[in-house]
Amino acid sequence: MTQQITVNSRTYQLPSAPTIVVCVDGCEQEYINQAILAGKAPFLASLRSFGTVLTGDCVVPSFTNPNNLSIVTGAPPSVHGICGNFFFDEETQTEVLMNDAKYLRAPTILAEMARAGQRVAVVTAKDKLRSLLGHRLEGICFSAEKADEVTRQEHGIDNILARVGMPVPSVYSAELSEFVFAAGLSLLREERPDLMYLSTTDYVQHKHAPGTSEANAFYAMMDDYLLRLHAEGAVLALTADHGMNAKTDAIGRPNIVFLQDRLDAQYGARTTRVLLPITDPYVVHHGALGSYATVYLRDHDEQKQRDVAAFLAAINGVEAVLTRAQASERFELPSDRIGELVVLGERLTVLGSAADKHDLSGLTVPLRSHGGMSEQKVPLIFNRKLSGNDGTRRLRNFDVIDLALNHLV
Amino acid sequence: MTQQITVNSRTYQLPSAPTIVVCVDGCEQEYINQAILAGKAPFLASLRSFGTVLTGDCVVPSFTNPNNLSIVTGAPPSVHGICGNFFFDEETQTEVLMNDAKYLRAPTILAEMARAGQRVAVVTAKDKLRSLLGHRLEGICFSAEKADEVTRQEHGIDNILARVGMPVPSVYSAELSEFVFAAGLSLLREERPDLMYLSTTDYVQHKHAPGTSEANAFYAMMDDYLLRLHAEGAVLALTADHGMNAKTDAIGRPNIVFLQDRLDAQYGARTTRVLLPITDPYVVHHGALGSYATVYLRDHDEQKQRDVAAFLAAINGVEAVLTRAQASERFELPSDRIGELVVLGERLTVLGSAADKHDLSGLTVPLRSHGGMSEQKVPLIFNRKLSGNDGTRRLRNFDVIDLALNHLV
Repeated sequence: MTQQITVNSRTYQLPSAPTIVVCVDGCEQEYINQAILAGKAPFLASLRSFGTVLTGDCVVPSFTNPNNLSIVTGAPPSVHGICGNFFFDEETQTEVLMNDAKYLRAPTILAEMARAGQRVAVVTAKDKLRSLLGHRLEGICFSAEKADEVTRQEHGIDNILARVGMPVPSVYSAELSEFVFAAGLSLLREERPDLMYLSTTDYVQHKHAPGTSEANAFYAMMDDYLLRLHAEGAVLALTADHGMNAKTDAIGRPNIVFLQDRLDAQYGARTTRVLLPITDPYVVHHGALGSYATVYLRDHDEQKQRDVAAFLAAINGVEAVLTRAQASERFELPSDRIGELVVLGERLTVLGSAADKHDLSGLTVPLRSHGGMSEQKVPLIFNRKLSGNDGTRRLRNFDVIDLALNHLV
Repeated sequence: MTQQITVNSRTYQLPSAPTIVVCVDGCEQEYINQAILAGKAPFLASLRSFGTVLTGDCVVPSFTNPNNLSIVTGAPPSVHGICGNFFFDEETQTEVLMNDAKYLRAPTILAEMARAGQRVAVVTAKDKLRSLLGHRLEGICFSAEKADEVTRQEHGIDNILARVGMPVPSVYSAELSEFVFAAGLSLLREERPDLMYLSTTDYVQHKHAPGTSEANAFYAMMDDYLLRLHAEGAVLALTADHGMNAKTDAIGRPNIVFLQDRLDAQYGARTTRVLLPITDPYVVHHGALGSYATVYLRDHDEQKQRDVAAFLAAINGVEAVLTRAQASERFELPSDRIGELVVLGERLTVLGSAADKHDLSGLTVPLRSHGGMSEQKVPLIFNRKLSGNDGTRRLRNFDVIDLALNHLV
């Protein structure tokens, strides 16, 4: 058996101990800081002495799927192809959902580790990620959301509900993420995978600010599981897909720029198409509102494109407008899956399409969301000392497996 | 008596009712939002129906003095001259403290209102602002910090301690700000000033995140006073000098770029001088660390300046580096009071000079600070409906007096 593998031009040592990579969805660093301050996360606090706490940049758009795929491929979206939940196919003139593995352009480290004889397990909160994360993976892969449908043939395991001892949680709940940890702990104890990937959902972070009792309770739950995974001898490597920020004014009203309405009023209907790649079947908690949008133009005219870019850049709440070429280079995105323009919202502002396309009835608390550059800073936390970080390397969340496998002291 | 006055090229109607402008130091909008969510700020919440809640941009550097002076002059620092607590005088080669009124280059609306026969009162938390805010003001002007030294001759009032019924609070306390409101309420009831300016201190915001019990208690205190001022029939206009952000990693360690150390290592000692205009005699709660610095170069050489700018811009945590000309234009700063370069830290990063110049022993909780562009969004809140805001005008915190006097429905 080989001692290392190469995936997407990067080389990884095989795990020397069971290694668990945790992607905490929407984990703005301040959630951990505030939970520690409130005395709710003693294990995470203790990593200051015997572990390693770093900060990295996630992929922009700071959305769930692009970043989960970056983490498991060790590569940016320009390599793996997943740059949101949707792209617009100009040939067929349709918006295409990218949740299926056929849109994935690169192998995952998970699948390649399994191919190299390692036992690999993946547990996600929502089922939408399972197909992508489990692509060509010979191992265990299932979601908490559909934990009652798990079969040995399809998911590499069965009877998980009974083993975890929890009912299938609501897709909009803190328990959905708790189930991921409970299942991970059970797998660690019984199957003892060499490499395990646990991915939670940001339902709590979309609803509750750092330091609130609800957020602290959620991090206390995670802290307790992390301690138990640590106590089993696992190497823990925690990061996030993206951060999270309030997107409201002082009394909690959302700051929304409806780009399609603005563009239609300025240039006429059907001259531009605003696509929000955050859109997915689970939008109750954010109303498909994030701080990233991409715009397709009907006329492929350079002057028109410059016009539209300048118009958008002048709107209050818009942080930046990039051309396809600029965005592809700066954010390492696949240029065939973004529009002619990429628009980024400021920290407190989200970008919508047309007002009548957004159902905001699910926003029962002030909007918190992500997608922009202001949600790019995420934690990189390990329960071991790492070597070779002199502070000059720009760390990314998708370096987490490299750090966990190649840089342990 | 005239019905309007013109100050710094803007015209203001005289107050039609007692008008109170409140500058809540460090009031990131999320503090109000979270206090409302926790049920601690019912009066501020009620302004959604009968008042006006807007968002504005403060002045960069997002520091206390530049913004307080902008608010009371209705003008940016390029007009009033105060762009921090310090500037470097290249002729005398000394760092000059700008807390004295002799550095103020423009009249205040407060002084001009008094000259027009209006009764004007100013209460600040810290005494450092009193000289600037009270410049040429015939009226009441004192600080909570030195409330026990108030004399009718110098401060336009006496016996304020007995009237307020509170002891002189510690300069590092929530009570220092509470004293400002208590004094303001007493003045409103007895002297009934036509225009009153109340300015708090951000001790609480430097220590506690939005939504924490300490922050909520502070906003509950303010909410209660605002209700009482409202009940007395006053027009209330609330804004902030700047926002506030965590400047730490996931476990609360500060993210600091020590610019002087970096520059000395790269270019040699005494070739550059880093000046931090946040530095003041009260640094215990932030260690003189903010997200804004200005750099003076010994050699006035353009190539060297470009070199240094590029070197600084490449440092992790630096958001932007501007030349003196760029910074003066973009942020409306007095070019003779900033260095050749202006450096801005990212949202989670502060800029230091040399590590051994900062006393961080006072940082007993994770650093929260301000100074950069990420602290530029502040609330503009009124207990009246306003007219003439169609959402296209870029509002500034220093529009608050214009809005309160000229735009009431």
